[in-house]
Amino acid sequence: MKIDNLVHDGVPRNHFASDNNSPAHPEVIEAVLSANQGHALAYGDDYFTERATAKLREVFGSSCEPFFLSTGTGANVLSMAALTRSHHAVICAENAHLNGAECGATEKFAGVKLLTVPTRTGRIGVEDIQALLGNSGDQHHVQPRVVSLTQATDFGLCYSVEELRRICDFAHENGLYVHMDGARLYTACAALGVSPGEMTRDTGLDVLSLGGTKLGLLGAEAVLFFRPELAADFAYIRKQGMQLASKMRFLAVQMEALFTNDLWLRLADHANAMARLLADELREIPGLEPTREVQTNMVYATIPPQAVEHIRQRYLFYVFDAKRWEVRLVTNHDTTEEDVRGFAEMARKTVGQ
Amino acid sequence: MKIDNLVHDGVPRNHFASDNNSPAHPEVIEAVLSANQGHALAYGDDYFTERATAKLREVFGSSCEPFFLSTGTGANVLSMAALTRSHHAVICAENAHLNGAECGATEKFAGVKLLTVPTRTGRIGVEDIQALLGNSGDQHHVQPRVVSLTQATDFGLCYSVEELRRICDFAHENGLYVHMDGARLYTACAALGVSPGEMTRDTGLDVLSLGGTKLGLLGAEAVLFFRPELAADFAYIRKQGMQLASKMRFLAVQMEALFTNDLWLRLADHANAMARLLADELREIPGLEPTREVQTNMVYATIPPQAVEHIRQRYLFYVFDAKRWEVRLVTNHDTTEEDVRGFAEMARKTVGQ
Amino acid sequence: MKIDNLVHDGVPRNHFASDNNSPAHPEVIEAVLSANQGHALAYGDDYFTERATAKLREVFGSSCEPFFLSTGTGANVLSMAALTRSHHAVICAENAHLNGAECGATEKFAGVKLLTVPTRTGRIGVEDIQALLGNSGDQHHVQPRVVSLTQATDFGLCYSVEELRRICDFAHENGLYVHMDGARLYTACAALGVSPGEMTRDTGLDVLSLGGTKLGLLGAEAVLFFRPELAADFAYIRKQGMQLASKMRFLAVQMEALFTNDLWLRLADHANAMARLLADELREIPGLEPTREVQTNMVYATIPPQAVEHIRQRYLFYVFDAKRWEVRLVTNHDTTEEDVRGFAEMARKTVGQ
Amino acid sequence: MKIDNLVHDGVPRNHFASDNNSPAHPEVIEAVLSANQGHALAYGDDYFTERATAKLREVFGSSCEPFFLSTGTGANVLSMAALTRSHHAVICAENAHLNGAECGATEKFAGVKLLTVPTRTGRIGVEDIQALLGNSGDQHHVQPRVVSLTQATDFGLCYSVEELRRICDFAHENGLYVHMDGARLYTACAALGVSPGEMTRDTGLDVLSLGGTKLGLLGAEAVLFFRPELAADFAYIRKQGMQLASKMRFLAVQMEALFTNDLWLRLADHANAMARLLADELREIPGLEPTREVQTNMVYATIPPQAVEHIRQRYLFYVFDAKRWEVRLVTNHDTTEEDVRGFAEMARKTVGQ
Repeated sequence: MKIDNLVHDGVPRNHFASDNNSPAHPEVIEAVLSANQGHALAYGDDYFTERATAKLREVFGSSCEPFFLSTGTGANVLSMAALTRSHHAVICAENAHLNGAECGATEKFAGVKLLTVPTRTGRIGVEDIQALLGNSGDQHHVQPRVVSLTQATDFGLCYSVEELRRICDFAHENGLYVHMDGARLYTACAALGVSPGEMTRDTGLDVLSLGGTKLGLLGAEAVLFFRPELAADFAYIRKQGMQLASKMRFLAVQMEALFTNDLWLRLADHANAMARLLADELREIPGLEPTREVQTNMVYATIPPQAVEHIRQRYLFYVFDAKRWEVRLVTNHDTTEEDVRGFAEMARKTVGQ
Repeated sequence: MKIDNLVHDGVPRNHFASDNNSPAHPEVIEAVLSANQGHALAYGDDYFTERATAKLREVFGSSCEPFFLSTGTGANVLSMAALTRSHHAVICAENAHLNGAECGATEKFAGVKLLTVPTRTGRIGVEDIQALLGNSGDQHHVQPRVVSLTQATDFGLCYSVEELRRICDFAHENGLYVHMDGARLYTACAALGVSPGEMTRDTGLDVLSLGGTKLGLLGAEAVLFFRPELAADFAYIRKQGMQLASKMRFLAVQMEALFTNDLWLRLADHANAMARLLADELREIPGLEPTREVQTNMVYATIPPQAVEHIRQRYLFYVFDAKRWEVRLVTNHDTTEEDVRGFAEMARKTVGQ
Repeated sequence: MKIDNLVHDGVPRNHFASDNNSPAHPEVIEAVLSANQGHALAYGDDYFTERATAKLREVFGSSCEPFFLSTGTGANVLSMAALTRSHHAVICAENAHLNGAECGATEKFAGVKLLTVPTRTGRIGVEDIQALLGNSGDQHHVQPRVVSLTQATDFGLCYSVEELRRICDFAHENGLYVHMDGARLYTACAALGVSPGEMTRDTGLDVLSLGGTKLGLLGAEAVLFFRPELAADFAYIRKQGMQLASKMRFLAVQMEALFTNDLWLRLADHANAMARLLADELREIPGLEPTREVQTNMVYATIPPQAVEHIRQRYLFYVFDAKRWEVRLVTNHDTTEEDVRGFAEMARKTVGQ
Repeated sequence: MKIDNLVHDGVPRNHFASDNNSPAHPEVIEAVLSANQGHALAYGDDYFTERATAKLREVFGSSCEPFFLSTGTGANVLSMAALTRSHHAVICAENAHLNGAECGATEKFAGVKLLTVPTRTGRIGVEDIQALLGNSGDQHHVQPRVVSLTQATDFGLCYSVEELRRICDFAHENGLYVHMDGARLYTACAALGVSPGEMTRDTGLDVLSLGGTKLGLLGAEAVLFFRPELAADFAYIRKQGMQLASKMRFLAVQMEALFTNDLWLRLADHANAMARLLADELREIPGLEPTREVQTNMVYATIPPQAVEHIRQRYLFYVFDAKRWEVRLVTNHDTTEEDVRGFAEMARKTVGQ
C-alpha cells in the first residue's frame, strides 16, 4: 500500500491517522527487556504481575482488582460479561467503540443487547439513560444493567468529574453498574487535570477498561474492578474469553511502566499539546476551523478534497465524514512540532488554491 | 510465593515447570525492537505483517492464509469457530488442551460439544474417530465436523507423518475437517526431522494453530488455513473473538523471527536434546526410569515425595499424577546442560537415601 | 387481576387487547382431536406431520421446506440462526418483534447484532437497507446478511407485493437474505387479496416465520424455507434451539387445519372486517379518529384517559403511547359485531363528557 | 414409512417404541377444551395459569416457583442457564438426555461444559461427583456448579429417596446445585411409592424439570424452583430461551390435569404394571430374560434378529444395542394387556424356531 510505504522509505514518518499506529515508548521497551530474564511462572502467578498489580492499586486504590489482557475489545467485552447475564442490556453511546467498532463481540460473547443513544459528542447523560429504563420488569424486554461510558470519547471529548458522578449516582440508584471504556483515559485525565483514581474510583465507577496500547505500549490493556465482589469470577471469564496470556509478565510490566514516573501523564500531556498546536495552526488557515471542540488528542476539521489528497502524500489520516470532507487528526506521544507544522504547511499551501 | 522468588534472588534460575515460564529469545527481542520505528497501520494492514505473512507462506505454502493472534487458546477456539456451526461436534483427545485446559472456551464461543477420546498418549487414531460417527444425520445428536489433533501432545509425544495422513484421509472421506493444535509443533518437527510444511500442509491438514509463545516468543500465535476458502470469514471471527491486536506488527515480527534462519529448529533441537540428556541422567538413578517415551521436550518420571521436595528448592516443576508421584519435566530453549545435571545431581542425592 | 377476572365471571367476554388472548377455533380443536388416536412416531416422523407438510407445500410451493415449532419467537430466532454466523447483522425495523419484544433472543442465540431502522409504520424500504451497508468488508463491523420484514407490521400495516419484490431484489443483489416475520401474515394476505404463496414465495422471500397462534390455533408456528439449501441444517438448529416437539403431530395438524377449506382466510377476513367496523364506529365519535391507517385487524386511536378507564371495565385493551393516550385495539377471529358496537357505545358515552 | 403406516391402517395399534408416541389422555383433552373459552391474557398472566400454579404448589410445596414450557429440552437447558454462568460445568451421567439426546443445546445456550460419568444404570453417585471436583479454583478449568440427575433414568431405573438425599447433601456442602430431569418422574414415584413432593422438595433438590408429554399430555413441561431466589431471572431466561408460550393457558391446564384426581399416579401405575407383565411374559420364553432390572415402564431384553423382524411387523420398538440385539420396550398409559400378550405371543412363536 503506497500510503504505508511512506513510513518505511528510509525516513519513517509519523501519521495523524490513529493512536494505534504509533510505536512503543522507549521506557516501555526498557520495562519489557528488564522482565525478560530467567523463568517466571506463567498465567500471572509471577513476580512482575504482582508488582504491576501493586502499582495499579497505588494509583487506583488498594481495594481495586486489576486483570491484564491483550486487547481493548477483550477488556470491554469481558467487562460486560462480568457484569451481565444474557437477558440484560448495556446502555451506551451509538458511536461507542463497544457498539460500532468491535464486530458485535459483546452481543456474541455476553449475549446481551446494546441499547444505544445517538450523540454527536460521544457523551451520554442521565436523561438518556432514564429514557431507556421504561421496560423494567417486563419479561419481553432485555433489562438494562450496565451503563458504559467512553472517556475520552471517540471524538476526543471528556465527561467532567461532576458528570461522571451524576451518572454513577443515578445508575446505582437504578440498579445499574457503570463501566468506563478508558482506552483513552489518559488524555482525558491530562486534559482535565484529574488523576486516574479521581476520574474512576472517586466518581463511583464500578469497572474500568484501562487502555495502554493507544498510548505508547506494545500491546497491553487491563480491566479494573472497583468493587472486588464483581471480580469474583473474572479469572475464569478472562480465560474462557481467550485473554489469559501465558507470559503475563510481559503485559504486566508494560502497564507498570505507564504508571512509573508518571509516564502516562508526560505522554498524554504531549499528545494533547500537539493537538492544541495543530488546532491553532489550522485556525490560521482560512476555512480550516476545527469542526469540534479540541479537548484531548483529536482534531476534527473540514479539509477540501484536493488538500486531503495532497497532504496525504506525506501524512496519513482518515476522512471521518466523506460527505462533508470532515477529517480526523490524531496526535500521539511521538508527534513532533515539526509534524504538526509540516502538516499545517501542506494544508496552507493547498487550501484556497 | 517462595518458589517463584527463587527466580529473582539475584541468580535467576531455570525451571522445568513449563515452556510458558521461559523468557523470549534475543533474536525475537531484536525483531520487536527493529519493528518499533515510526508509525505503521494498525490491525494488520502494515508492512511488517505483510512481511511475516510472506514468510509463513514460504514455510507453509503459498496458498495458506495466516492470521496472527495473541493467545493459544484464542487460536484453538477461533479455529473451531471458523470450522463449525454450533450443532457440530469436535473430536479430540480427552487430555487435549482444547478440552482440559481452556476453561470451556470452545463450548462457550463456538457453542459446540467436544467428543473426547480417552488416551494415555494424547494421540487418537482413525478407529477412535470412527467410533464417534454413529449418530450422523440424527437431529438429536451433535454432528462431528472437526478432528483436532495435538502435535506434540501434552505428553510430548508425536503423531508420525503417516498417522497424520491416515487421519486426514479418513476425516476428509467422512466430511470432517482436521485441525492441529501446534502449540508445540516445533519440537515435534525437530524430533521427527520433518519440516513444518511437511507436517501440516503435506499431510492434508485443513487448519493449524501455530504456536510460538511456548518456544521463545514474548507472546504471539497464529492460525493458518491451508484451504483458503475456510478463511473467508476469519478476519471477522478474529475481531469478534477479541483477538485482533491493534499494533499487529509486534505479533507479526515475533513469528517472522521464529522462521528466520531456522530459529525454531535451533531452539526446538536444543530443548529436545536437553530432554534426552535429562532422561539419560535419570535412567542412571535407580528407580527413576522415565514413565513415558521421551520424544520431544518432556520427561515424565516417578520421583519419591521427599526427593520432589528437595529438588524443588532449586528447580520448579509440577507433579502430574500425585497418586504415583509422577512428575512432568519440561525443557526449553534456554535449558542448560548445567540445569539438567544440577537437577540430576539433586535427584541422585535424595533418591534412595 | 381485576381485568382478567372479567373473562371468567360466568360471561366470558372478548378483549381488544391482543390476538394472543383469543381461544382456538373449533376447526383447529377438531383437527387436534382427530390426531389423538393411537401411537404416532415422535419428533415429526409421523403421518400427520407428513400430511401437514404436504398441505403447506400445496400452498407455498412444492419445493419449500416447512418445519413446525412451538413459539413465534422460536421461529424468528431460529430463522436468524439458520441464515447467519455471529459476525453477521440483521436489518429490521426498530419496532420489529425480533428487536423489541423477544428479550434479546436473537442476540443471545444467533450472536448477531440487529441494525434497526426507526419507522412509524413498521415498514422499511430499500433506502433504509442501503444506508446500513456502508461497512461491508470491514473487519471491525458486523456484516449485514439478513433483512427481516414484518407482514403485517405491529401497527397492522402491510407491505405491498411490489414493495416486497423490490426489497427482495435489492437484497439479493447485495448478498442479503430476506426473512419475513409472518406472525400476522394472514390478515395482510386477506387485506391485500393476495394468496400466502404470492406474498412470500413469489416475491422472492427466502425464509418465512409462519404464524398461527395469533389466528386461532392453540399454539403452533412454522418456519418455511423457500430455498431448500438454506434448510440443510435446520433440523439440528430446531432441536438445539429447544423447539423440537416430541408429539409433533399436535403442532402439525393445527397448521394443517388453518389451510384446510381456507380457514385462515375466513378468520382473517373476519378480523379485518371487525377492525374496519370498529374504525368506522370510532370515526363517528368526535375526537376519536383513528391515528393510523387501518389495513388489517388493528385500530390505533387516541382515547381520553377517563374513557379508557371506563371502557376497560368491560373490554381489555392496551395503551400504546401513554403520553398521547393512543390505544391499540386488536380484533380477532372471534370478535363479534356486538363486541365492536359495545365498545363504541361505551366510548361514545364517555368521550366528550 | 411402513412401520408407521401400521398405526393408521384402520386399526390403530400401540407401540413399545417410546412414551412420546402415545396419544394424550382424555382427561387432558377435556382440560384443554374447558380452557378454550373466551379471551385470556397471554404469556401466563391468566386465570388458568394461576390455577395450575396453585395446583403445583399444592403438590410440590407452597414456596416452589413453577414455570410452564413447551419442550423437555427447553426445561433442561433453561434450568442449566438459570443455575450457571458459562465458566461453570454440569455433572451428569454420560447417557443423560441432557448430554446425549439434546443436540448440544446446553453447551450452546448456557455455554457450559458437561462433565460426564460413564454408567450402565444412568445413576451417578457421590463418589462420581467427588471425582470431578479436583480442579476447583483453577482458572484453566470449568467449575462444577450443578449436578443433574435423571429420575427415572433412560434405563427406567430409579434413585432411592436416600440416594437423592445423600447426593443433595454432598452437593450443597460443595457449593453445587442439584437439578433433576424429571421427564419420567411419575413412573419413578409410582414405582417407589413416593409422592412427587417427597421425591423432589423433600430430598433437597434445587430445581426440577417436570415432564408431562411422556405421560399423556399433548405437550407441556415445567421447570420448578424449590428455592425461589433461583427463579429470580427465569421469566427472562424462558422468554429469551424461546419457551414463553403466548397462549400459556393451554400448557398450564394440561399440567393441572395431570395432578387432578391423581391422574399422574393412575397413568404411571398402569404403565409400570404393563412393564412388569411384559417382563414376566418374556421371562417365560427361553432366552428372553430381561437384561436389566425392570423398575418402571421400560423393559430391556435381548431378542434374536429374526424375532425382532417378525414382531416389528406389528409392534414398533427400538433396538438399543445392535451388537447384542438388546431391545428397549416402553409401556405407557395406553398400553393394554392385549398389547403385552400379543407381543409375547409373537416373540414366543419366533424365538427358538
